[in-house]
Amino acid sequence: MEVTIVGAAGYAGVELSRLLASHPRVTLSGLYEARFIGKLQSELFPHLRGLVDLPLRAFSIEDISREAKIAFCALPHGKSLEVVPALLDAGLKVIDLSADFRLPDVNVYEAWYQKHTAPELLERAVYGLPEIFRPQIPGADLIANPGCYPTSVLLPLIPLARRGLLADDPVIVNSLSGTSGAGRNANPELLFSEVSGGLKAYSVGVHRHAPEMEHYLNQSSRYSHPVLFVPHLVPAPRGILSTLYFRTTETKQEDELFRILSEDYGNEPFVRVLPPGSLPNTRNINGTNVIEIGIKTNESTGKTIFVSAIDNLLKGASGQAIQNLNLMLGIPETTGLELSAVFP
Amino acid sequence: MEVTIVGAAGYAGVELSRLLASHPRVTLSGLYEARFIGKLQSELFPHLRGLVDLPLRAFSIEDISREAKIAFCALPHGKSLEVVPALLDAGLKVIDLSADFRLPDVNVYEAWYQKHTAPELLERAVYGLPEIFRPQIPGADLIANPGCYPTSVLLPLIPLARRGLLADDPVIVNSLSGTSGAGRNANPELLFSEVSGGLKAYSVGVHRHAPEMEHYLNQSSRYSHPVLFVPHLVPAPRGILSTLYFRTTETKQEDELFRILSEDYGNEPFVRVLPPGSLPNTRNINGTNVIEIGIKTNESTGKTIFVSAIDNLLKGASGQAIQNLNLMLGIPETTGLELSAVFP
Amino acid sequence: MEVTIVGAAGYAGVELSRLLASHPRVTLSGLYEARFIGKLQSELFPHLRGLVDLPLRAFSIEDISREAKIAFCALPHGKSLEVVPALLDAGLKVIDLSADFRLPDVNVYEAWYQKHTAPELLERAVYGLPEIFRPQIPGADLIANPGCYPTSVLLPLIPLARRGLLADDPVIVNSLSGTSGAGRNANPELLFSEVSGGLKAYSVGVHRHAPEMEHYLNQSSRYSHPVLFVPHLVPAPRGILSTLYFRTTETKQEDELFRILSEDYGNEPFVRVLPPGSLPNTRNINGTNVIEIGIKTNESTGKTIFVSAIDNLLKGASGQAIQNLNLMLGIPETTGLELSAVFP
Amino acid sequence: MEVTIVGAAGYAGVELSRLLASHPRVTLSGLYEARFIGKLQSELFPHLRGLVDLPLRAFSIEDISREAKIAFCALPHGKSLEVVPALLDAGLKVIDLSADFRLPDVNVYEAWYQKHTAPELLERAVYGLPEIFRPQIPGADLIANPGCYPTSVLLPLIPLARRGLLADDPVIVNSLSGTSGAGRNANPELLFSEVSGGLKAYSVGVHRHAPEMEHYLNQSSRYSHPVLFVPHLVPAPRGILSTLYFRTTETKQEDELFRILSEDYGNEPFVRVLPPGSLPNTRNINGTNVIEIGIKTNESTGKTIFVSAIDNLLKGASGQAIQNLNLMLGIPETTGLELSAVFP
Repeated sequence: MEVTIVGAAGYAGVELSRLLASHPRVTLSGLYEARFIGKLQSELFPHLRGLVDLPLRAFSIEDISREAKIAFCALPHGKSLEVVPALLDAGLKVIDLSADFRLPDVNVYEAWYQKHTAPELLERAVYGLPEIFRPQIPGADLIANPGCYPTSVLLPLIPLARRGLLADDPVIVNSLSGTSGAGRNANPELLFSEVSGGLKAYSVGVHRHAPEMEHYLNQSSRYSHPVLFVPHLVPAPRGILSTLYFRTTETKQEDELFRILSEDYGNEPFVRVLPPGSLPNTRNINGTNVIEIGIKTNESTGKTIFVSAIDNLLKGASGQAIQNLNLMLGIPETTGLELSAVFP
Repeated sequence: MEVTIVGAAGYAGVELSRLLASHPRVTLSGLYEARFIGKLQSELFPHLRGLVDLPLRAFSIEDISREAKIAFCALPHGKSLEVVPALLDAGLKVIDLSADFRLPDVNVYEAWYQKHTAPELLERAVYGLPEIFRPQIPGADLIANPGCYPTSVLLPLIPLARRGLLADDPVIVNSLSGTSGAGRNANPELLFSEVSGGLKAYSVGVHRHAPEMEHYLNQSSRYSHPVLFVPHLVPAPRGILSTLYFRTTETKQEDELFRILSEDYGNEPFVRVLPPGSLPNTRNINGTNVIEIGIKTNESTGKTIFVSAIDNLLKGASGQAIQNLNLMLGIPETTGLELSAVFP
Repeated sequence: MEVTIVGAAGYAGVELSRLLASHPRVTLSGLYEARFIGKLQSELFPHLRGLVDLPLRAFSIEDISREAKIAFCALPHGKSLEVVPALLDAGLKVIDLSADFRLPDVNVYEAWYQKHTAPELLERAVYGLPEIFRPQIPGADLIANPGCYPTSVLLPLIPLARRGLLADDPVIVNSLSGTSGAGRNANPELLFSEVSGGLKAYSVGVHRHAPEMEHYLNQSSRYSHPVLFVPHLVPAPRGILSTLYFRTTETKQEDELFRILSEDYGNEPFVRVLPPGSLPNTRNINGTNVIEIGIKTNESTGKTIFVSAIDNLLKGASGQAIQNLNLMLGIPETTGLELSAVFP
Repeated sequence: MEVTIVGAAGYAGVELSRLLASHPRVTLSGLYEARFIGKLQSELFPHLRGLVDLPLRAFSIEDISREAKIAFCALPHGKSLEVVPALLDAGLKVIDLSADFRLPDVNVYEAWYQKHTAPELLERAVYGLPEIFRPQIPGADLIANPGCYPTSVLLPLIPLARRGLLADDPVIVNSLSGTSGAGRNANPELLFSEVSGGLKAYSVGVHRHAPEMEHYLNQSSRYSHPVLFVPHLVPAPRGILSTLYFRTTETKQEDELFRILSEDYGNEPFVRVLPPGSLPNTRNINGTNVIEIGIKTNESTGKTIFVSAIDNLLKGASGQAIQNLNLMLGIPETTGLELSAVFP
C-alpha cells in the first residue's frame, strides 16, 4: 500500500516519515512540500539518513494520485483546506493532521481559526481518536487527526463523561508542553537561548484547542463542560503533561476511578491507566504512542485530579495518525508502533 | 553588623553566602555546618571563589554568640528546632529558613511535619513576608522565612483576600518548579540524566506547603480557602511558576484587578504587577528578588487566573531572608538586593 | 535462546532489558542485582512498564545456569571479576560490559584499575568491537564489550592505523559526553541543578579509557600512538561526540579519507561515514546503534580532524552488546537493533 | 558621562543595557536600532522591566552626538563599518563589539569577512583586551572589543608566548560554546527543539575567529603559531569552555606554569588562574566578567593543556566592553562589574 506525505519539512511530517519508513505494510512513495523542493528530506533532517532518502517535491495532484492511495497532510491549519478537497476528489483517502476538519461546526471553526472553504467535508470527516471513535475509522475517507492537547484531555475524561460522572463545573486543564509543539518555527522566543531555564504560561484561556476539547467532551456527556485551558511552555523538546482538575457527580475513590478507566481502556494497547499511587512522567512515554493517566482525589476540596502524559509528536500527532492508518488498512493497530521510551 | 549562617552546605545557605558577601552593611563572620567541617565553602562551591573564603565549622553556640548578632538558619525542617532555641537564648536574632516556625498552630505543624519541640516559640515568630507583615518584622527576634511555593501564592492572592474578593471556593494552585527547590539531595530522580526532558507532577494535593498557604490566606480573609496544591518538577535549575485558578466574589475585569494589586504593591520594590496582556516568565526574574504577577480573567468559566513567577532561592528563600534582615536593621529594604536577571 | 542480565539496576542493564524485550530471537529469563531485590525492574524504571515485568533477584549461579545460556554482565569494573569466572564455569557464555576483561595485559589493567583476580581469562576474552574483531566473536565464550569513549575513537582511526597512515605523533582525543555515561550515581555534581548550563573538562589526560584506546590502536598499527584523552561533561543526557586531532603519514585529501573509511565500512550496518562537508550531531544517532564519522583536513596546520558521534548507552554499551550477541547466535547483526533516532 | 548603544536588539546590546543601567558612573542616554523602532527595549526583553525603560530609535548621528560622548556599537560585522566613521567624525569615542576593527591587516580582514570600507581607521583602533593592552586603552578613541573565542584563548596563552615558551607547533583550540554566541538569530538549528540534547562541531578549522587568535598570539611571540580552531555547539545558553593543546619550548611543571600565569595575572580582578588540580566550569563564571584558567601537563605526550572558561556575553563581549569603558574613564576597572555567578 503506497502512502504519501504532504507537508514533509515540519516536525509532524518528518516524524511520519520516520515511522512510515519502518512500517512493514506500507511504502512511502513520495514527499510533498512547498519549500526546499529537490532537497532530500534527509539532508534537512540528517537523523533520517539511511532511513528515508526521498526528495521533497512540489505538490502535484497528478503525481500523488498516480503513486499513492492514502495521503497524510501535515500542514498548518488553513493550508489543509487548500489540498484536502483535491486529494479526496482524486480518490485518495486522507489523514489530515491540521485542525481544519476537527470541528464539525463551521461557525466554531471560523470563530477560532479562519474562513472555512470546504465546509461540505466537515460531516464526512471522522475525528481520529481511535480509542473513542474506532468503529467509524475503517470506513472513513477523511480522518481529522486530533490535536495534541485535546488527545491528552479527552482520553482521560471521556470515560467519566460517558457515565455522567463528570460534573458540569468548569474543567481546568493545566498543560505543560515541550517546544516541538510550536513547530519548526524560527521565532526568537523558541531559541534554545531563550527557552532554556524558562517557564511561562501562554494563550491563557484563549488557546484554539479549547473548543476542540469542549466539543468532544460535550458530545460524550449529558452535561456541558466549559474548559478553562492554560498551556505552558517548558524547556523540554517533546512531551505534554496535562493536569486536569474537575468534580465528579458522585464521590468516587481513586480505586473506583481506576476501575472505570480500566474498563474502557484495559485492552487498549496505547493507553496505560496507572494504579493509584503512580503518576506519569513524560520521560516514560516520550518516543512511544502511549498515553499514561494518573488518578488522584482530594478530599478537602472535593476535586479529582487526572494527570496525563503523551508524546506530542506521536500520540499527539504522527503516531496517532499511523494508528488511524492501521485501522483503515484493517491491520493490527500497533503495526509500526511497537516503540519503547529511551531512558535515561 | 556581624551575621552568621547555620547550614552552609545546602543551596539556600550557599545563596545566603553569595548575597551577604556583597552586602554593604553586614559582615559574614562564620559558617556552620554538620558536614565537610574544615573545608572552605568555596572549595565545595567554586562559584564563590574570591567572594567567600570562609571555612565550614561545627556548630558552636559559644563561637556564634561571640561573633554574630544575627543568625540565618538554612537547615532542613526539624533541624532548626534543635538550634534556634539556643541561638535565641544566647541573645541572637534568628532568621530561620525552615518550616519549623511558620505555622502558628502546633497541631497543624505536627500533622504535616513531626513533633515540635519548641512550641513556646511559635507565637514569638513573625512570618517574614515583608509585603504583608512589614510592621512586625523590625521588632522580631525570630523570623520564620516563608516557603518558596507559599510566597508565590500568598503575594498574588492576599490583596483579594483582604478585600473579601476571594471566593470561598477551593483555590487551585498549579506550580512548576525547577530542581534546586529539591535541595542538594543526591536522589537519582534528581540527576540530570533523569530530569532532563521530563515533566511530572508530585505530591498531588498532599504537599506540606498547602497548610502554610491556607493559614496565611485565611488569616487575611473573612472566608476560608481550601487550597488544592499540585507541584510539578520541570527541567530548569531555578524558578517557580505558579498558576492560580479561583473565583472572585464580584466580577472584576483584568484592569480592576490590576488596579487592586497595584494599590497594594505599587511602591513595593520587589513586586511587579504586570499590566493585563503581559504574563511572567521565570527567565525574567531568576537571579533577582522580584515576584512577577500576571492577571487573566476567563468569562466562559467565571474563573480568574493569576500567574506568578519567583526565583525559588531568592524571593523564595535567601533573597527574602536578606529583605527581612534589612528590615530588622532599619536600612533600605533593597540593600544588597539590587540584582538583575541574566538573559539569555 | 534464554539470556540473563547480571546488574540490572544501572543504566546499561536497563538499556539491555529494553532492547532484549523487543529482540525477536531471545527470551530475557532473569534479572540479577545486588540492590532492590524483589522489586520489579519496571517499578524502578517505569519506562519499562508493559515491556519488562521481571523482578530483580539476588545473584545465584544455580538459577542463572538453569535458566540461561548467555549472561550479560552490566556491573561496575571489579564486580565483574567476582561473577564472570563462575558464569563461565557453569557453562554460560558471557558478554561483559565492564572494563575487567578489555585489557589483555594484566599489568596495564592493574596500573589503571585494581588487582585482577582472574588473569587467566584475559586471553580467552575477545574485544567485542564487531567491525574490527568480527571473526573472533562467534566462537568466543567471553566478550569484553568495549568502553564507550574507545568505541568512538577506535572505529574512526583503525582504518588509518591498519594502512600505516596514522602518524606516530600523539593523537588528541577531545570528547564530550552526556551525563548517563557517569551512571546512576547519586553524586551531587551530577544533579540537574548542577549540570544544567555547565561545561567542564574532567580527568584531563588521566582517564582510564586512554590505555584501552592506545592498546587497540597500537595493535592495528605498525606505529605506537600515545593518546591524550580529555573528556568533558556537558548538559545532555546521552551521546558522545569525539573530536580527534592527528597527523597522517601521507597527505590525504578529505575525499581520499572518505574513500578509505568507506572501503572498510561501506557494508557496515552501524557505521555511517559522512561525505566531506557533513559533520555528525549526537541528535542524529542517539537512540540508535550507529556511529557517525565526519572528516576534515586542515592545510595550515597539517592536521586531520575526525569527529565521531555515538549513543554511549547503545553503540557505546548495550547496543554493541546486542550486536555481539547476534554474532554469537549467528543471526543477522541488526536483529533487535533496527532503531531510529527521535528528532526533535 | 552619557553613553549610547548602537545595535540594541541583539544579545550583546541588551547585555550592555543591563550592565550600564546599574553602572554608577555613566548614564545610558539612548538606544539605536534598525528594527522595532519606537518599542521599549524592555518590551522586547522583559527582564529589563524597571531597569531600562528606553525606546529603540532609528540611528541618527545628530541625536547621538548631542546626547552622548561614548558609543558602544553592538552590530554584526560589516554594519559597524557603516556607522563607526560617522561616530568618530562627530567626536564620539567608540567601543565596537564587531570584528570590523580587530584585525590590523586589511587583507586578512577582507579574506575572512568582506570588503573593508574604512581601512584608514584600522591603525587607530586599539584591541580592547585590557589585561594585555591596558596602557593603550585610556587614550584610544576606537576600541575593537575582542571576539569571545579569542578572549578565551589569548589570555591563557599570551603569558607563555611572551616568554618564548609557546612552541611553534600548531596550537589546537577545542572550544565549546553555548547558544547565545550565535546571536538572536531565528535559525531553526538554534531552536530549543533542535539544540536540546545535541552535541556537534561546526566551522572545523575555518571559523573567522582563528585569524584573530593567530594575529595576537604571534604579536606576543617570537614564533609563529598556526591555530587549529574547532568550535562546538552544546546545549547551554551561555558560556565558552576552551581546551587548548600545545607544546612548550621547555618542559614546565604545572606549578611552574601556575606561577608564570600568576605573575602576569595575580593582580588582575577578572582573571582567576586555578591552582594545579582545579579545573574551570562555566557555571562558576557565567554571569561574571571573570576568566578562569586551569592548567594540566601530560607527560606521555609532552603536551600541555589549558582549559579556560568565560561568559561569552560578559568577558567575551559586553562585560569586557564595560571594562574598556572604565579604563577610558579612568575609574576603577571593576566599576559596574562586581557580579557573582548564580549557582545552582
